[in-house]
Amino acid sequence: MHQTTVKDIGEQGLLARLQRFCPADVIGDDGAVLKIINDQNLVVTTDVLVDRVHFSEKTTSPEDVGWRAAAANLSDLAAMGATPIGITIGLSLPGETPVAWVEALYQGCDRCLKTYQTKIVGGDICRSSVISVAITAFGQVEPNKIIRRFTAQPGDAIAVTGIHGASRAGLELLLNPDLGQNLGQKERDNLINCHQRPRPRLDVLPHLWNLSEFIPASKNGWIAGMDSSDGLADAVLQICRCSGVGAEIEKNLIPLPPSLTQWVSPEDAIAWALYGGEDFELVLCLPELAATQFVKKLGKPAAIIGKITTEKTVILQDSLGSGSQKELSLSQGFQHFSP
Amino acid sequence: MHQTTVKDIGEQGLLARLQRFCPADVIGDDGAVLKIINDQNLVVTTDVLVDRVHFSEKTTSPEDVGWRAAAANLSDLAAMGATPIGITIGLSLPGETPVAWVEALYQGCDRCLKTYQTKIVGGDICRSSVISVAITAFGQVEPNKIIRRFTAQPGDAIAVTGIHGASRAGLELLLNPDLGQNLGQKERDNLINCHQRPRPRLDVLPHLWNLSEFIPASKNGWIAGMDSSDGLADAVLQICRCSGVGAEIEKNLIPLPPSLTQWVSPEDAIAWALYGGEDFELVLCLPELAATQFVKKLGKPAAIIGKITTEKTVILQDSLGSGSQKELSLSQGFQHFSP
Repeated sequence: MHQTTVKDIGEQGLLARLQRFCPADVIGDDGAVLKIINDQNLVVTTDVLVDRVHFSEKTTSPEDVGWRAAAANLSDLAAMGATPIGITIGLSLPGETPVAWVEALYQGCDRCLKTYQTKIVGGDICRSSVISVAITAFGQVEPNKIIRRFTAQPGDAIAVTGIHGASRAGLELLLNPDLGQNLGQKERDNLINCHQRPRPRLDVLPHLWNLSEFIPASKNGWIAGMDSSDGLADAVLQICRCSGVGAEIEKNLIPLPPSLTQWVSPEDAIAWALYGGEDFELVLCLPELAATQFVKKLGKPAAIIGKITTEKTVILQDSLGSGSQKELSLSQGFQHFSP
Repeated sequence: MHQTTVKDIGEQGLLARLQRFCPADVIGDDGAVLKIINDQNLVVTTDVLVDRVHFSEKTTSPEDVGWRAAAANLSDLAAMGATPIGITIGLSLPGETPVAWVEALYQGCDRCLKTYQTKIVGGDICRSSVISVAITAFGQVEPNKIIRRFTAQPGDAIAVTGIHGASRAGLELLLNPDLGQNLGQKERDNLINCHQRPRPRLDVLPHLWNLSEFIPASKNGWIAGMDSSDGLADAVLQICRCSGVGAEIEKNLIPLPPSLTQWVSPEDAIAWALYGGEDFELVLCLPELAATQFVKKLGKPAAIIGKITTEKTVILQDSLGSGSQKELSLSQGFQHFSP
């Protein structure tokens, strides 16, 4: 059976089909017009996803590609403290791509955006020999509530908004279905869902805004932080590098998926949490009292996992276990262009 | 001699080299933070350029690819009446791409942006088997000065801000160097420059803002219009379709490159002007008095080329020549996915 392809209906035909995912008032002009709340700053972020680099047919349906692409960008906005306004999609794809695949991509994207009260406001489509999805997201934020990477201070507590390692665990289960035989179906589905349908933590921003009274005026700006899309270790290392500080992380305080150690060695579990990436939680550095309030408000699995130090190194401590100390580095993380 | 490739220096190495094209204050966070003038609307537009579809090594240096990509997006902003704030670049490229190529791309982009007092504010890089450049541009505009496609009214004059057909002529000269033997070097260079370094018409916006007194309150909104990036015929047809009106264009009033008819038949010359595309002029529909003032202010080659009618067709008239009338249609234009 011949599936209708992009080539069959042409660029105009495809655009016409995709326009149902855009609000009617932004269609049909050279650009989309959007309102910004007065005195708020615009935050802009871009991500490119490429077939067989960031997703593959084996582990990712087109709906999931769309959801994850939208989620990654919304997570970047959350990491800046910004509330989303909209996204644009720049799509390159072979003419042989089934129209149903493209529609499913937009569907997944749209579903994720709707969950966070935002929308696709524009885009462009072009033929290419490989599928590439470039998303740009816009948000708005009060200038004094921007979360930056460079304002962490010694003494700040390091808080994470949720578990780490779940996305990587879900990916492993998809790639190797024989793994985790002792997992229940619900636990398995839950880990896979963490990989396929990650949730950007825009929900935590209002809780941060309520912390003003706990942030001393002496602090050099608002809360420091970023998201853990490239791994928890990467997030802590980037914040420390940008802020000219170091950190001590307590291994036993990092929230892991409860089912993970049932089928993975403790070493792999912590490695996935630190370097797996794509958990899309926020990693925040803020005064201890504010951090305690924040983590209490969110409830478990949110946790304080360590503190910012004056040393320029990031140390992973194991106080409950061997008492060992290990220095973390970026080179253990994921590098897109590594041979 | 081995040229340094993207694979040699990795994604982080490449990002470090490209950051010199970004303002220091937008580097190193999950997103860029930008100011918007209070009460102005945000305008967002996206374009995707793909190697061997939109550019080729034969006709386009990496500097030119960068310039043209930036110019196309700034032209979309101009087409909405918006002043640029910044752009993001989402780049997919093979690891074998020379670093010098990527730097030249950014250089060209940056040069074009600087000409229009704007800048690269963010981006992402990812490996792929084919080069794809997705640009998103942001601008700001007063809500009552937004240029739309759907507000053209019967009786409006149709004004163009400059010549049409020059970009296509330049492309033909690049592809077939034997053409136009009777052209002087300066004329030849000028046409090629129109193709390689098109200029978005942001400069005309202040002249439009000065026309308020000539736009009657009875008009359904501000001036209608769009840019001629997909050809003059496409622009007039799109405006008419969106506004539910028609148009009469006078063939002899369309400003052509003066040297064009020296080496191209009159039929080809008018076809290139109507369907060649990438001239990046503005096509505007406004009351006759306002149009006259506007064209006078800009000077030649800006011109009034016809008027909006109540009929739903777009007619090309030849009053000076055969007296013939021809109906224009979109199907003669460029379709990206045509077999």
